Amino acid sequence: MQSVEVLRIKPEGSKAEPDLVVVEEPLEIRVGHGAEGSREQVSLSVTMRTPGDDELLSLGFLFAEGIINSYDEVSSVKPCHDLGKQEEIGNVMRVELQPEVKFDIRKFTRNFPTNSSCGVCGKTSIDSVRSNAKIPLDQGVTFSFDILKGLHGSLQSTQEVFKHTGGVHACGLFDQQGKIIAHKEDVGRHNALDKLIGAQLLNDELPIYSNGLILSGRISFELVQKAVRAGILVIAGVGAPSSLAVDLAKEFKVTLVGFLKEDGYNIYTGKQRIEV
Amino acid sequence: MQSVEVLRIKPEGSKAEPDLVVVEEPLEIRVGHGAEGSREQVSLSVTMRTPGDDELLSLGFLFAEGIINSYDEVSSVKPCHDLGKQEEIGNVMRVELQPEVKFDIRKFTRNFPTNSSCGVCGKTSIDSVRSNAKIPLDQGVTFSFDILKGLHGSLQSTQEVFKHTGGVHACGLFDQQGKIIAHKEDVGRHNALDKLIGAQLLNDELPIYSNGLILSGRISFELVQKAVRAGILVIAGVGAPSSLAVDLAKEFKVTLVGFLKEDGYNIYTGKQRIEV
Repeated sequence: MQSVEVLRIKPEGSKAEPDLVVVEEPLEIRVGHGAEGSREQVSLSVTMRTPGDDELLSLGFLFAEGIINSYDEVSSVKPCHDLGKQEEIGNVMRVELQPEVKFDIRKFTRNFPTNSSCGVCGKTSIDSVRSNAKIPLDQGVTFSFDILKGLHGSLQSTQEVFKHTGGVHACGLFDQQGKIIAHKEDVGRHNALDKLIGAQLLNDELPIYSNGLILSGRISFELVQKAVRAGILVIAGVGAPSSLAVDLAKEFKVTLVGFLKEDGYNIYTGKQRIEV
Repeated sequence: MQSVEVLRIKPEGSKAEPDLVVVEEPLEIRVGHGAEGSREQVSLSVTMRTPGDDELLSLGFLFAEGIINSYDEVSSVKPCHDLGKQEEIGNVMRVELQPEVKFDIRKFTRNFPTNSSCGVCGKTSIDSVRSNAKIPLDQGVTFSFDILKGLHGSLQSTQEVFKHTGGVHACGLFDQQGKIIAHKEDVGRHNALDKLIGAQLLNDELPIYSNGLILSGRISFELVQKAVRAGILVIAGVGAPSSLAVDLAKEFKVTLVGFLKEDGYNIYTGKQRIEV
């Protein structure tokens, strides 16, 4: 968190005082790949994130994109110090893949210059998730109705940065007793989820079949995509889902819950996992 | 909006009924550039957006990125029909630049494979905005204290899609009487702003010196960046700003207001433009 001077305008008058804001800084993720003697480096992505857990963010991002499938495929992940300017240190992470890991830059086509027709529509987006998905045949996990109702409050009580800044998204994993067993905050909701899943990858706890995922905000396609890839079967969000988030959840038979409040919620897909 | 079946869980019991969700679909933006006879095409970006106003989104995105400075530099912007699959139609926009417009793919370095150290930190991010900024020397515009308080309600009353889905972000331009003179909604907050600014570009109404910008949610660096580029001097958001959003607003001497409510708000920078 960073302290800034703010002029607070209230009905009873205005007052200058210090305030805390959430830190936002760019992070570049670079990947080193190839056999010994012919290593190459590519810059994969620049994301605006809240500094902290950058190793987990990098691992989670590479996993979500299908570049790695387990932590065994990574030889190292650390901040890059070989940089042009002093102030960039801490904002570039370098992930070294094991020499035998195949890395095909062409598979990573988003945001790249291309002349090919690579396919962009909801259907092709859902198709592209399929090849990387980890959803199992055994879908026996269920959660009780009441457990879900209490989740919003449980997640909020973990949100240290939100408490002071009001400016971050959060996500967490919950067990069948409704306990939040892991959680992350970030200025970007996709980063928070990458950090959460990156930690599970590092601890060799993927796929996550038996825990549910709670999201502090709206539920986009991208968030469901990352969850499906990690084998999460129940996704609950405080906000609204998008059409493509619902389509993707339906396609992969995962449970999608939206507008989660203390007195109720909406089940969009996979109602068999909620014991009403 | 898209209709989906939902199971609504309420204290009085559960009920299956239809519900509306906001549509989310990918949009690819392609750019055609170069002299006659040696035209090239690059795929610039894929963004998850709510379909509609895709021409404006494409123009606003190219403007924000500094690829175009006015609509005169564009010879056409339209949906691409030369696609591999029928279902992709409507999800690819092609912007043709005038032959004399210089387009340097290397300047557009974000998300591209690179071996160079291109610089990523808050400072370099702010520096990169400077070359494209449109902020004028004349900063005489002011807004009254009361006008700002009413903006949240005014923006919400324009939000048709939000009313039905609860799942979209909105942004609008307001005049000195507090009237919302233009507004856009989208599943992505940056898309909504690109659409809003794209419309001003199309109508040759950039830079926007005399109107303020209201945002429905949190205020990130990227949103302030797009506003600064368009010459907007007053930015007001319903949510919290990030550290880098505040830094950027300070650097460009624009007014940044956060936590906008009916009974007050916080002024982070540029308080001289608010008549308290």
